Order: sequence, then structure tokens, then C-alpha cells
Amino acid sequence: MEGTARLEAFSDGIFAIAATLLVLELGITEPRQLTHWQSYLAYVTSFVTIGIIWINHHHTVALLGRVDRTMLFATNQLHLTVAFLPSPTKLVAVFLNKRGERSAVLAYAATFTVMAAMHQVGWQYASRGRRLIADRTPESALRGVDLAYAPGVPMYGLTLVVAFFSPLASALLTFATAAFYLPSAALFDR
Amino acid sequence: MEGTARLEAFSDGIFAIAATLLVLELGITEPRQLTHWQSYLAYVTSFVTIGIIWINHHHTVALLGRVDRTMLFATNQLHLTVAFLPSPTKLVAVFLNKRGERSAVLAYAATFTVMAAMHQVGWQYASRGRRLIADRTPESALRGVDLAYAPGVPMYGLTLVVAFFSPLASALLTFATAAFYLPSAALFDR
Amino acid sequence: MEGTARLEAFSDGIFAIAATLLVLELGITEPRQLTHWQSYLAYVTSFVTIGIIWINHHHTVALLGRVDRTMLFATNQLHLTVAFLPSPTKLVAVFLNKRGERSAVLAYAATFTVMAAMHQVGWQYASRGRRLIADRTPESALRGVDLAYAPGVPMYGLTLVVAFFSPLASALLTFATAAFYLPSAALFDR
Amino acid sequence: MEGTARLEAFSDGIFAIAATLLVLELGITEPRQLTHWQSYLAYVTSFVTIGIIWINHHHTVALLGRVDRTMLFATNQLHLTVAFLPSPTKLVAVFLNKRGERSAVLAYAATFTVMAAMHQVGWQYASRGRRLIADRTPESALRGVDLAYAPGVPMYGLTLVVAFFSPLASALLTFATAAFYLPSAALFDR
Repeated sequence: MEGTARLEAFSDGIFAIAATLLVLELGITEPRQLTHWQSYLAYVTSFVTIGIIWINHHHTVALLGRVDRTMLFATNQLHLTVAFLPSPTKLVAVFLNKRGERSAVLAYAATFTVMAAMHQVGWQYASRGRRLIADRTPESALRGVDLAYAPGVPMYGLTLVVAFFSPLASALLTFATAAFYLPSAALFDR
Repeated sequence: MEGTARLEAFSDGIFAIAATLLVLELGITEPRQLTHWQSYLAYVTSFVTIGIIWINHHHTVALLGRVDRTMLFATNQLHLTVAFLPSPTKLVAVFLNKRGERSAVLAYAATFTVMAAMHQVGWQYASRGRRLIADRTPESALRGVDLAYAPGVPMYGLTLVVAFFSPLASALLTFATAAFYLPSAALFDR
Repeated sequence: MEGTARLEAFSDGIFAIAATLLVLELGITEPRQLTHWQSYLAYVTSFVTIGIIWINHHHTVALLGRVDRTMLFATNQLHLTVAFLPSPTKLVAVFLNKRGERSAVLAYAATFTVMAAMHQVGWQYASRGRRLIADRTPESALRGVDLAYAPGVPMYGLTLVVAFFSPLASALLTFATAAFYLPSAALFDR
Repeated sequence: MEGTARLEAFSDGIFAIAATLLVLELGITEPRQLTHWQSYLAYVTSFVTIGIIWINHHHTVALLGRVDRTMLFATNQLHLTVAFLPSPTKLVAVFLNKRGERSAVLAYAATFTVMAAMHQVGWQYASRGRRLIADRTPESALRGVDLAYAPGVPMYGLTLVVAFFSPLASALLTFATAAFYLPSAALFDR
């Protein structure tokens, strides 16, 4: 496999495993916990967000003509953050609306913020001066990705701020972001 | 990799990981639990069902000519449900024939029902008006898949209803569905 | 991807995940357990055996020209058994030389026996009358695989019998089988 | 897929799974443990090191023209060690600066040393007399890899010795090695 194909395959692996491991950290170990809605909120939010990152990552890599070691390392940092997500997800699943919820949601929001920042860093490195961009990729496609990724860091930064005032509101906002990104991303594709 | 190949690879990853994680939730942590047949019933049922979904998914994707973002999101919902399966599987493995078995089996049956529904939704979206179907795919192949997928939701809906009256009967019915689908699916392939 | 390539990829996924999950069931959660040699014995035996199965499976699939649904289902049963391996591995890791060791090692030996039998069943189905064998594959290659796979079931059956008399001897025999198969398999390749 | 491509895919699977499983062994199960910096130190060190091994392995395999069974087995031993890493990582995450830290860090350093040694063994086997090297690979590329891999075993051997005197210093040294290898490896690529 060539450079970008193998990077994609490795990223796919990390994303798929991280998403699938989420269930092990659900915090539902007895039937009476099945009504614990916080577990589903955290699970669905994290799973859908990883799905969106996967689609965006796929979209981005398709514009590249090659990868270099710096890009591999930037991607590795993104992997590290995505792979870390099951941990704060579990804390939110178990502790939302309980004692310690503020720290749990702060960790959750911080992880998403770092994730969005890492995604942005990788993209900026690859697209600046068309460093790793394929010749076939039109300039308009780059502007489209710039626009699509721009809200990520401010949005998750906002959930971080909100978490100080209301952990529940922050968690719901993160869920809403995931739910909103779906049609938005679909729209942007046309 | 092109669109459908990469979607397949990602689905394969999710299905393989979810199936393999089942063993971590088996509930057999001591030698004297080795005779706890409920664990094997739940494990084999879930594992074989994921295997069938994998085969069917493979069969379906082979008929597609392309994927779009909506299809990716529909597939993501299917992934989410399959990846969730280890959780209710564990509840059935540990609590069948014990206090709380009804909730456990209801969650199990509900997960399978949603899974079948998500599979149906993706297929209907892709095949309606041959939206994503490859030109090479004959109309008869589409009708074949329609027929093969039609029993899924009613069948698992039935296990959901049965779970209210007899959790054990519902679990056995889910196992029987998995066991029955094997030769049936093999037959349909000819 | 074509039939055999995708089957290989899925098998690779199952084997890689099952092998990597073994570490989660190692039973070493505190520094003072680091001298618990039974954990390493069980871990290395299972890991190397999965590695051998992977190599053999790769060797087998390379001789095939196509797969059918029956072969997929036979392979699914092999997957099911390999994916189950972390559970008895943990029991051996934790209970060898302790109370309950006999049941633990019996479960371990039984799992390996079923695994070898499933491997044999898949191979017999594929090779009988050259049902799924590629035209390019010489008859001598089939005889070579027949010879190489023949000892599997009797060998693991023997570890099952030995487990009744001495669990430790059975576990060591399983380890020796894994260690022995390496040069043997390498030899057979020439 | 041909020999080297399939070996790469399998290695990618093992590396991706081992890296992603690290989070399950983080030892952060309550919000108040979120300030437990030892968990992050161990997690990031192990994750980045696996990432470096992945990049180096990719670089190495790209120089090969073929693989044989001996190479597969050498690679299997590397896989075994990488897959084992989550276990000592957890011990360091939980016990650094606590009772038992020496054994924990010794196990950690020993695992990295074995990992570097296995990597070296595989490379020496493949490159000695250009045994598995592709015709297209220039001799200078082999010398480059020789130079790049040479510090691995002595470096991790040093962390092993340091662990006897100061577990914390050893853990920090392992982290520094991972952090240092990034730009170094990038440099070597030019």
C-alpha cells in the first residue's frame, strides 16, 4: 500500500477500536442500571463524534497526494486523543448528575477540544502552501475544508467554558454538536 | 481505496472488534462458573448474529456502485448498535434465570430489533430508485435482498414481545434465529 | 476486494484482536504479581498459538480460488473459538496450581481441541474434490496441508486427556505444542 | 494481498489495538483521579512509542521484497511484546510514586528492552546478506536503518539499569526517549 492508503488504514483501525471499546466503559453492569440515561448520552455522543471524525479524516486524506513523517506524527497525536476518549466518556457516563460531575465533564470537553485542535493542526500543516496536497485537488476544495473545520475548536472550547457553570448543559451541547454536524457535513459535501 | 471498499473495511473492523470483545463480558471469571450455560448461549448467539450481519453487509455492499454521506451516516448508526451489543449480551449472560432477567432480555431483544431496523433503513435508502446501486446489479438481485431482509424486524420484534412473558424463551428464540439464518442465508445465495 | 481477500482481512482482524485482548485477562494487576509465571505461560502459549493459526490460515486461503457461504460459516465457527480463547486463558493464568485448576485447564484444552477441529473442518470442506481450490494449486500442496493439519486434533485431544491427571502437565504440553509447531511449520514450508 | 502487504496489515492491526487498549488500563475510574499525572505519563509514553514502532516497522517493511516464515515468526515475537505493553503500562500508571513502583518500572523497562531487541532481531535477519531485501533497495538505505535502530537496545537497557536506582527517573527517561525519537526519526527520513 502507498503512503496515504496505509495511513488511512491505520487511522481506520484506531477509530474503529476506540469507538467499539466505548461499550466496555458504559457503566451498565446490572439490569437496574439500564434506565441510566447518562450512559447512553455519553456513549452515543462519543460514538457519533468518532464517526464524524472518521468521515472528515477520510475526506481530508482524499485530498492529499502524499504524507511525510511530520504528518504521520500529527496524525499520531490525533490518534492518541481519540484513543483516550473512552476514559472521559466513562466518567461522564457514570458521574453525570452525581458528585464529581464537573471534573468529569471538564475532562470530556477538554478531550474534544484537543481532538479538534489536533485535527486542525494536521490539516493546516498539510494544506499550508499545498504542502501535501495532490495536484488534482482544486483550491476550492481546500477552502471548503477550511470552512468546515473552522468551528471545531471554538465550539468545543465553548463546551469547556459551559462545563464550569453547568456540566449537564455542556454534555448536552456536545451531544447537540455531534447531532448537528451530521446534516451540516452532509450538506457541505454537495 | 475507493468509497465502498473503505466503508467495507471500516465495517469489518467494527464487526470484528465487537464480536471479539464479547468474550470480555462473558462473566466467567472463576473455574466453577464454567458450567454457567447462559454465558455460552448469549456469547454464541451474539457472535453468530454479528457473523451473519457481516456476511449480509458484505453481500449488500457488493451490489452498490458508490456511497454518499447519508449512507455513511446510516452505516454509522448500524455500527453504533452492533458495537453496543456486548453490553446487553453480558446482562443476559450473567442474569438469565436470575433476578432482573426480564430487563436484561428486553434490552437484548431491543438491541437486535434496532440493529435489524438500521440494516433495513440503510438498504432501503441505497436501493430506493437504485440510488446507490451499481449499473451491473440486476433488478432480481435487489428483490432477493428485499426478501431476505424482510423477516428481520418482525422476527426480532417478536423476541421483544416474547421477552415480556418469558425471558428464557426470548433468548432461545434469538439463538434459534441465528442458527436458522445460516442455512437459510446459504440457500438464498444460490 | 474479492472474496478470499476480504475473508482474509476479516480473519486477520479477529485473530489480531483476540491475540491483543489476551493481555487484559493476564491477571497481573499489582507489582507483586509480576513473578506469577503461570500468567506468562498461558499468555505466551495462547498468543503464539493464535500466531500459528494465523500463518496456517494464510497458507490455506492462498490455495483457494474462491469462497462460498458454507466456507464463510465454517470460518465464522473458527473465529468464534479463537475469539473465545482469552476466557480459558485467563482461567489458566489465574488458577493454575490453585484450587479449580483442573476445570480451568480442561476448558483450555477443550478450546484448543475445538479450534483444531474447526480448522480441519474448514480445510476438508474446501479441499474435498478441490471444491474451492484454485486451478493453479498443485495436488501436492493439498497433500502437504493434509499432512501438516493431521496432528492438530489428536495432539490437543491428548492435552485434554492429560488434563484429567495433571493440569500442569497439560498446560506445559500445550505450550510445547506451540513451541514445536514453529520450526516444524517453517520446515514444512520448504 | 501479497506477503509483505498482508504482514503489514496484520502488524498494523496489532499495533493499533495495543495502542487503543492502553486507555482501558489507565487507572482513572473516578473524577478525583483525573489529576493523577502518572497515568498520563505512562499512557502517552506507551502510545507514542507504539506509534514510533509502527512508523519504523512501516519504513522497514517497505525495504523488503518478500517475507518468509522465519520473518513471520520474528514479527510474531515483536507483536507479542507490543501486545503485552498495556500490562506494565498499567502498573506504572497506578503504582509510580507508590509502594511497588520499582517492580512496576522494571517490568516496564524490561518490556521496552525486549521490544527493541525483537525489532533488531527481525531487522538483522531480514537484512543480513540482503536475505529478504528488495532488489530496488539501495545499500545506503540499509545502513541508514542500521544506524537508526542501533541506539534502541542500549537506550532501553539504560532505563532498565536506572529503574533500580530511581523508578521515576527511569519512567521519565522512557518518556524522553519517545519524545526525542520523533524529530530524530523525522530527520533521518530526509
